Amino acid sequence: MKFMCSRDRLNDAISIVQKAVSTRSTLPILDGILIEASRDDGVKLTGYDLETGIEAQLESDIRENGAIVINSKLFGEIVRKLPEENVVIETDEKMTINIESGPSVFSIKGLSAEGYPKIPEVTDAQKVILMQGILKEMIRQTIFAVSTDESRPTLNGCFFVCDGTSVEMVAIDGFRLALRKKEVGSDLPIMKFIVPGKALHEAGRILGGKDTELVVYSSQNHILFDTGKVRIVSRLIQGEYMNYKAILPKSGETEMLISTAAMLSAIERASLIILSEDRRCPVQLSMPSDEVLVISASTELGTLREEIAVSIRGEKVDIDFNPRYFIDALRAIDEEEISIQFSGSNGPCVLKPTEGEEFAYLVLPLRR
Amino acid sequence: MKFMCSRDRLNDAISIVQKAVSTRSTLPILDGILIEASRDDGVKLTGYDLETGIEAQLESDIRENGAIVINSKLFGEIVRKLPEENVVIETDEKMTINIESGPSVFSIKGLSAEGYPKIPEVTDAQKVILMQGILKEMIRQTIFAVSTDESRPTLNGCFFVCDGTSVEMVAIDGFRLALRKKEVGSDLPIMKFIVPGKALHEAGRILGGKDTELVVYSSQNHILFDTGKVRIVSRLIQGEYMNYKAILPKSGETEMLISTAAMLSAIERASLIILSEDRRCPVQLSMPSDEVLVISASTELGTLREEIAVSIRGEKVDIDFNPRYFIDALRAIDEEEISIQFSGSNGPCVLKPTEGEEFAYLVLPLRR
Repeated sequence: MKFMCSRDRLNDAISIVQKAVSTRSTLPILDGILIEASRDDGVKLTGYDLETGIEAQLESDIRENGAIVINSKLFGEIVRKLPEENVVIETDEKMTINIESGPSVFSIKGLSAEGYPKIPEVTDAQKVILMQGILKEMIRQTIFAVSTDESRPTLNGCFFVCDGTSVEMVAIDGFRLALRKKEVGSDLPIMKFIVPGKALHEAGRILGGKDTELVVYSSQNHILFDTGKVRIVSRLIQGEYMNYKAILPKSGETEMLISTAAMLSAIERASLIILSEDRRCPVQLSMPSDEVLVISASTELGTLREEIAVSIRGEKVDIDFNPRYFIDALRAIDEEEISIQFSGSNGPCVLKPTEGEEFAYLVLPLRR
Repeated sequence: MKFMCSRDRLNDAISIVQKAVSTRSTLPILDGILIEASRDDGVKLTGYDLETGIEAQLESDIRENGAIVINSKLFGEIVRKLPEENVVIETDEKMTINIESGPSVFSIKGLSAEGYPKIPEVTDAQKVILMQGILKEMIRQTIFAVSTDESRPTLNGCFFVCDGTSVEMVAIDGFRLALRKKEVGSDLPIMKFIVPGKALHEAGRILGGKDTELVVYSSQNHILFDTGKVRIVSRLIQGEYMNYKAILPKSGETEMLISTAAMLSAIERASLIILSEDRRCPVQLSMPSDEVLVISASTELGTLREEIAVSIRGEKVDIDFNPRYFIDALRAIDEEEISIQFSGSNGPCVLKPTEGEEFAYLVLPLRR
């Protein structure tokens, strides 16, 4: 194998595929990046931890076809430090990879590409075209609520629902729910599937450009995010997702309009005196009048009390929350003002837009 | 105690004194910051780990004198998150500290200032005035060679020598030496002392402004760096410093002129394939001609070979080094070109300016 390429583009491609290279694998070959050069398909880099696989195309001048596996961390460090923009990569019959740039010549021991596992082909797939920026935002706005509790595997991913015109993403961890919905077109295929949190996390870091398209392919067992230059493949989580529509109350007994930023910063301050280890210490919300929300917290370190101007309709409630859940939801909301619906002191609380149904964040209170 | 101040200035002062607050103390009061307000002296914040003490003055509007100790980490986090620029700090007779800013009121439990240890007074001191930027640079350029081996306490600090016109700073760790010298005036006091590495490290992070003065006071047992707004006090290390002038060879058998940046980046690349845990793997220097230096490394991961254009006078040598020592020294050098003097394959190697004596970095080779 022999090809010439740009150091900076090679560096970008390595950074992308490294996100799928397992860091604690028991098989040395999985610590590696697969490099494949073919005059027909160009140069392709691959990282794969047997669950999520990422392939990146690299613009190159190929002199000789071939393939090899090189340690991911070492390869990344070397390329980042190369002295010149022109790089020549060449392998010999002893599985040595020469990396040459200006006056520097590295010779690194590689592994045979034959031992590298194959990323599954996504065949018989349905597809939907999305803007990368939209998917990236929807991931950021829901992924924090994906459960890490392995006893309920279906909750370890985000549920995607495409109903023909919109895409809905849902994550639930037993104490809260995050839902985002976006109209994305018409005549789209009807489909639903559960994508593992890790694959989505990596996709969220790689996706960019607001105005760039992305094709999402889903088959029975796999999903493929294809940007043209980068392909992210993941297994899907099998099973029936929780019936989240039954959990989301249609309306609450109390509705409050509040500034997102004011509520977020007050709860962040309250969380400073709530020891993170001690989940029993809540943030307390109370409503002395229809125009005032009092946010307070009290622990052995001290107390915080803060008032926020709001507009309340219905029964006033006193209610306790884990501040983390509110902070995650409020950070995911871009709207300046939101509506929060309460159903008594022990019922779920739902953060919604003041108009429309683009999002819903449900948080269960801590029982008093 | 009651005073009003600016959130941002309070935040700056906390960040400065926090550098002297011990993070793993057994006495809770040492995790705290001492706040003292007096109409005569203003508001002063203090952090002290019984070795290094830092005091910062804070511009304030004092309404009531007093003093209290508050947990450093919590105080820092709270002030950073306060919603408005105006802050009111007030204590009550129960040692509660109220921190009020806009709609937020924190009430935090404090500790009595009476239990806080006194920072030593630096009396009968000699003094020298330096520019902060010069001292900051000299610290950065020597501190990495301070020994952490506690069996030779005098090497756990930087040796300062003021000979009447110049200041010299020296650090030695048994394998290398770093020396910086700067002409700073005339008619200065003759003095020498050993400052603990930790105090210098913190001073280096706090000192700023190239054009701002700093007074250094030294007594028998203590040193005080005084910027006017900030005072850093440290004990001095007692004992006789190593006779470093006897170690530094006057000249070498071989002299090489080389680009600092080219040598640094080549050795950084070589270090990528030298496992940091395996100190026996050296960077190898060899001189195939009077105009070429070859830098190479070879480990079980692979090899690197790189040529640099140089100018060599005298005997050509092959020599092995720990790359870390060269990297630290080369990063501390601002000059584009340096002179390196070798004394055979097993003798010390000295990095010097091509003219003058403003610095010397001695590195011992690894024996072949």
